[in-house]
Amino acid sequence: MAGSVYGTNFRITTWGESHGKALGVVIDGCPAGLELNEEDIQTFLNRRRPGQSAYTTSRAESDEVQILSGVFEGFTTGTPISLIVYNKDHHSADYSEIASYYRPGHADYTFDEKYGFRDYRGGGRSSGRETIGRVAAGAVASKVLGELGIKLTGYTRSIGAVSISDDNFDLSAINDNPLYMPDRNAAVQASEYLDKLRSEGDSAGGVVECIIKGMPAGIGETVFDKLDAELGKAIMSIGAVKAFEIGDGIRVSEAKGSTNNDPFIHSTEKPGRIIKGTNHSGGILGGMSDGSDIVLRAHFKPTPSISMQQNTVTKNGEEISIKIKGRHDPIIVPRAVVVVESMAAVTLLDLLIRNMGARMDYMKTVYRRGITDSRS
Amino acid sequence: MAGSVYGTNFRITTWGESHGKALGVVIDGCPAGLELNEEDIQTFLNRRRPGQSAYTTSRAESDEVQILSGVFEGFTTGTPISLIVYNKDHHSADYSEIASYYRPGHADYTFDEKYGFRDYRGGGRSSGRETIGRVAAGAVASKVLGELGIKLTGYTRSIGAVSISDDNFDLSAINDNPLYMPDRNAAVQASEYLDKLRSEGDSAGGVVECIIKGMPAGIGETVFDKLDAELGKAIMSIGAVKAFEIGDGIRVSEAKGSTNNDPFIHSTEKPGRIIKGTNHSGGILGGMSDGSDIVLRAHFKPTPSISMQQNTVTKNGEEISIKIKGRHDPIIVPRAVVVVESMAAVTLLDLLIRNMGARMDYMKTVYRRGITDSRS
Amino acid sequence: MAGSVYGTNFRITTWGESHGKALGVVIDGCPAGLELNEEDIQTFLNRRRPGQSAYTTSRAESDEVQILSGVFEGFTTGTPISLIVYNKDHHSADYSEIASYYRPGHADYTFDEKYGFRDYRGGGRSSGRETIGRVAAGAVASKVLGELGIKLTGYTRSIGAVSISDDNFDLSAINDNPLYMPDRNAAVQASEYLDKLRSEGDSAGGVVECIIKGMPAGIGETVFDKLDAELGKAIMSIGAVKAFEIGDGIRVSEAKGSTNNDPFIHSTEKPGRIIKGTNHSGGILGGMSDGSDIVLRAHFKPTPSISMQQNTVTKNGEEISIKIKGRHDPIIVPRAVVVVESMAAVTLLDLLIRNMGARMDYMKTVYRRGITDSRS
Amino acid sequence: MAGSVYGTNFRITTWGESHGKALGVVIDGCPAGLELNEEDIQTFLNRRRPGQSAYTTSRAESDEVQILSGVFEGFTTGTPISLIVYNKDHHSADYSEIASYYRPGHADYTFDEKYGFRDYRGGGRSSGRETIGRVAAGAVASKVLGELGIKLTGYTRSIGAVSISDDNFDLSAINDNPLYMPDRNAAVQASEYLDKLRSEGDSAGGVVECIIKGMPAGIGETVFDKLDAELGKAIMSIGAVKAFEIGDGIRVSEAKGSTNNDPFIHSTEKPGRIIKGTNHSGGILGGMSDGSDIVLRAHFKPTPSISMQQNTVTKNGEEISIKIKGRHDPIIVPRAVVVVESMAAVTLLDLLIRNMGARMDYMKTVYRRGITDSRS
Repeated sequence: MAGSVYGTNFRITTWGESHGKALGVVIDGCPAGLELNEEDIQTFLNRRRPGQSAYTTSRAESDEVQILSGVFEGFTTGTPISLIVYNKDHHSADYSEIASYYRPGHADYTFDEKYGFRDYRGGGRSSGRETIGRVAAGAVASKVLGELGIKLTGYTRSIGAVSISDDNFDLSAINDNPLYMPDRNAAVQASEYLDKLRSEGDSAGGVVECIIKGMPAGIGETVFDKLDAELGKAIMSIGAVKAFEIGDGIRVSEAKGSTNNDPFIHSTEKPGRIIKGTNHSGGILGGMSDGSDIVLRAHFKPTPSISMQQNTVTKNGEEISIKIKGRHDPIIVPRAVVVVESMAAVTLLDLLIRNMGARMDYMKTVYRRGITDSRS
Repeated sequence: MAGSVYGTNFRITTWGESHGKALGVVIDGCPAGLELNEEDIQTFLNRRRPGQSAYTTSRAESDEVQILSGVFEGFTTGTPISLIVYNKDHHSADYSEIASYYRPGHADYTFDEKYGFRDYRGGGRSSGRETIGRVAAGAVASKVLGELGIKLTGYTRSIGAVSISDDNFDLSAINDNPLYMPDRNAAVQASEYLDKLRSEGDSAGGVVECIIKGMPAGIGETVFDKLDAELGKAIMSIGAVKAFEIGDGIRVSEAKGSTNNDPFIHSTEKPGRIIKGTNHSGGILGGMSDGSDIVLRAHFKPTPSISMQQNTVTKNGEEISIKIKGRHDPIIVPRAVVVVESMAAVTLLDLLIRNMGARMDYMKTVYRRGITDSRS
Repeated sequence: MAGSVYGTNFRITTWGESHGKALGVVIDGCPAGLELNEEDIQTFLNRRRPGQSAYTTSRAESDEVQILSGVFEGFTTGTPISLIVYNKDHHSADYSEIASYYRPGHADYTFDEKYGFRDYRGGGRSSGRETIGRVAAGAVASKVLGELGIKLTGYTRSIGAVSISDDNFDLSAINDNPLYMPDRNAAVQASEYLDKLRSEGDSAGGVVECIIKGMPAGIGETVFDKLDAELGKAIMSIGAVKAFEIGDGIRVSEAKGSTNNDPFIHSTEKPGRIIKGTNHSGGILGGMSDGSDIVLRAHFKPTPSISMQQNTVTKNGEEISIKIKGRHDPIIVPRAVVVVESMAAVTLLDLLIRNMGARMDYMKTVYRRGITDSRS
Repeated sequence: MAGSVYGTNFRITTWGESHGKALGVVIDGCPAGLELNEEDIQTFLNRRRPGQSAYTTSRAESDEVQILSGVFEGFTTGTPISLIVYNKDHHSADYSEIASYYRPGHADYTFDEKYGFRDYRGGGRSSGRETIGRVAAGAVASKVLGELGIKLTGYTRSIGAVSISDDNFDLSAINDNPLYMPDRNAAVQASEYLDKLRSEGDSAGGVVECIIKGMPAGIGETVFDKLDAELGKAIMSIGAVKAFEIGDGIRVSEAKGSTNNDPFIHSTEKPGRIIKGTNHSGGILGGMSDGSDIVLRAHFKPTPSISMQQNTVTKNGEEISIKIKGRHDPIIVPRAVVVVESMAAVTLLDLLIRNMGARMDYMKTVYRRGITDSRS
């Protein structure tokens, strides 16, 4: 396989190029009996759609999703769910020039090295449109997780040097600003920073953070398929992500054991339940969820497509100076929030399903009782 | 599977507990015709062996490896290579106390939640001894990579706030100090920091960096199984790692496109070859190797086992104050260097093998020529 | 995963229900640089299309395939190839009755037991239309195999008790009769047998045989993923197959070692090459191709949908007598020929790609030479 | 991977050569909380041990198994179970001759073609001793299945032309005769047949049948990973198996729909439960268990190692006549009974675990209740 299949028991296969006929995903292994319709998925796709604000590409894509299989009378049947989004706005003419040279920061050169040639139209398979399949699958996974009481919330933590502050942290602000920042002041400052960069033809990077509440403890496999390892792969697989953190993340290297360890205590809210007094671990211990909130961060590089003059070489060896035309996001972070959330959701659900076989008592419970209708 | 199998085409399965009879790994998919003996593997294991210095546990383990299968007349045969290390120093008596409570920062609680009970002796499967299988496999992978001209070099980048400096960077210093730092001054400072922490019964974290030279361009699969995504999983799966970076890593979020993009230029050393003028990307573009050095970093948290008094709860709910006895590393970073290198090697080799089927011309080359002896 | 993903390195994911909007397949891992167009795939699909003869359902489906991704300027790009066939003739009204009871020989009951309910329209996911995805993928795999000099030929070996005879065996006859039998006499007899059964409202079973020429020796993995084991799974996964044979198949249990062993001899045609004097093994020894023709057989049960009165029960427990209405093939064997061929092709290609990493010398060959254009 | 890993959620990795130091298996994904000791596994291994009767090789191997990991205080912990059997009787001197030529019916030639050379001692990895890992894993899987009320019974159905008869069928006879036939008369006849062949230096084939009782309905995945497809792969992967049947098997091709369909009826024993009136399907419909007994058959070819003179070629091209020395079973079928049973057990358990995520209600049941001790 060439890497477009993800997951073990909840398995997704995405396909499609930026300027091909369509893009989509096939989900194999979604539990039967989930109520699901196109609106559930469209809501997620709308969060990554272009043209939402001044800071996203003006390419006008409605990105309407259709469910082609796997749902009957409003419920998932257990068979593959095929989701498709047709491309509407794809005039390849704009892209003929970039066929000849390698754009800095893009995958043009590496695609040519790997496959011998490439579909150069709009980045082909390496375009950000590739994430449509991820987000559509993430919508389905999130709905399953919701039924189990698990909720993911992603947002922009920082853009350039402008970071949200703990004092102004307000989740209700996320959808009030086009940057999806849970801090209205920071959003204003970040907008100013982006306006300046855009006027210079430059671009910015940033950080997406995601918090997961309600995850039962003990999820994640020991050794290689740890919860943080699987999340790490999921998030690092998103284009432009160059670093990944769990909990205190990079700060742990300067911490001491005495301050980094989270003491176990008794919950006062839920008597008889063990919780942690602090959460430096970010909700994961030994590769398994520990019952606290899971906290992860993804560091995105600046959009490589900039309007400034850049040096590069052509495929045939000539050194040239280029200026990339076309519509580009000066920052991809706001649109990437839902992608991070989606990849986390798919990963969590896959590990929850994998964990179903972890114990003899789980198996006895499932196989000894009579279940007659999965739609409930 | 419970997560102890790793890789797609070069697939390793590790097993064993800290205080069980033995630990080991089975490697399935090693190419036939590699010259291999126990010394190749022992050299790697010796780098992670305890008792090397004042900063590693004094537990005296020789950790001698035996090859049980898959090698004949000095060459790999293509069949599974089974490697085993018997535990010698495992007196379970020392560990009976920790059976009753949950050590902060350890996997005791999450193991109980996942499986209903745990092998509490020395951490069982979540012990650092679990990495023996990883390192043994890494030794084999590194030897294959070496035959293809690919070389990995890992070292300690920082311990606590003490970081190596670019001015003093000297790879030849790595093996001159017990901390594996490529900067003799930094190594002295870090030792002082560790001495102080140890006298307080505390522990330190740090950063391991690994540089990979000689990787051909185009390796790594598009979309999910990107080279950086697979490396991210590999490194995050190592116990105590809380963050992962490629190239400029976390710094990209504050960078601008104009400074973060690496221009393509022509190589003056190798005429006709395209290279990058800078390497902010850390050797990976679009999830594929770009021909530059691959640079990755792993952030390790401080060893959770400290001698200081800590608060926690017992399995049955009593709040207690504990002081963990026994032999503990005040820092695991130096011993983790070879683990990082090993996981990177296994990952690179797996992706190199997977890439063999990427192109029709590769297939025609292999299947149309006659090869009669793989040992060459 | 719920079982709709197949293969390791050449990986296909099929989706779609009999009466859903569409059916399709996503192929991940097809080597880049294969010339491919919709006609290549349509040719295969036409061989399984209904309405070809009196012996196949009269449901009029044109089953036109579209390539949605993974092909650019006429060549595969290495990224996922998404193929889709829209359903045109799906009036669910006909099927409302069967929602209430369990048809003998069908998957109605087992689907309900597994998932709690089912998409009952035309069999849903368990319909023979599910094979559209298999055949579309098989067309692509067959084209790759053709480029490597490997050719598969499937045909009907027997229908009921009417078997082809060695004396009349004539591959050129396969496409001369609607039953795809390489024996014109047998085809006439089988037609008479089918006419009789059809007039009685009954149905017939039969045997499909497939011969593969040109397979290099040594393909197939040792132990579990043997060539015959993978072919066995591939063929047994086709609906209605109840037995699978390689080479002499069931006859080996009555054979003696002295007669079943194939002697190795020197080829007179290709001096210096070792071949086998006979081919009882059916081209596979120790789970690997041995250079002789690979010969496999699939035994299909009679179509379970018959027009005769049958006893069964309703979902709610009532014992009833039913007569299944609608359009049914009195035999599925002729249309299954291309399905068997397709599943074999996908399996062989997957193992050929997997074998690319079997030897150090293969790896050195691929990674040490310069290849600049995969389209050749 | 080179094919020594099997299963998705219950995953086994076997390793070892006939004349290497040891053989073994690592089981990843066994549910925690199963009571397990070495005797459970030894009982299974003893059934495949050589030297049990006149019809098995006189090589004296005690094949004592050790559990190296994954079991603590008598219960499985959920972590990998490593099982090892050391080789005791391996004098390679006997085998030096066969290094130079290709034995008919063996994998010598195909191993050389695949890997460029081979471990020729006693067949290396292609020896029947390879099944030790399968049987050890099968013992564990069978114990889990037993806890769920599922029971497998394997036996010899025929040897050469001597088949058990329905009239004399007596399961209690299986362990009364060295051929494991559930028909004492047939066992006597088969012994006479084998005595004659052995005196001629020849060998025999035969059929192993396995019946599985207690399997819940709905197990097996739709489309590719059907229960019969997975069983087909599992059984075909056993060395010397050339054909595989489910239920009526090869007889279905001559049957008619009206006789092959099994009517659904109500159980008189268990009111309210739906069962089948007949079992032509062999317990599988649409790739899922249908609640009836699962019946499968494996056709084994005669042992290729015979004492008669045979023609072959040397590796360097010389045509020669050989007579294979050493200890050989005149038939492998009796010892293969437990191998068939083991592979079936591993496959069933894997699919049972995979099925745990099939329905939303299963997930809600497991994740909403509190379970505190898996050992019960």
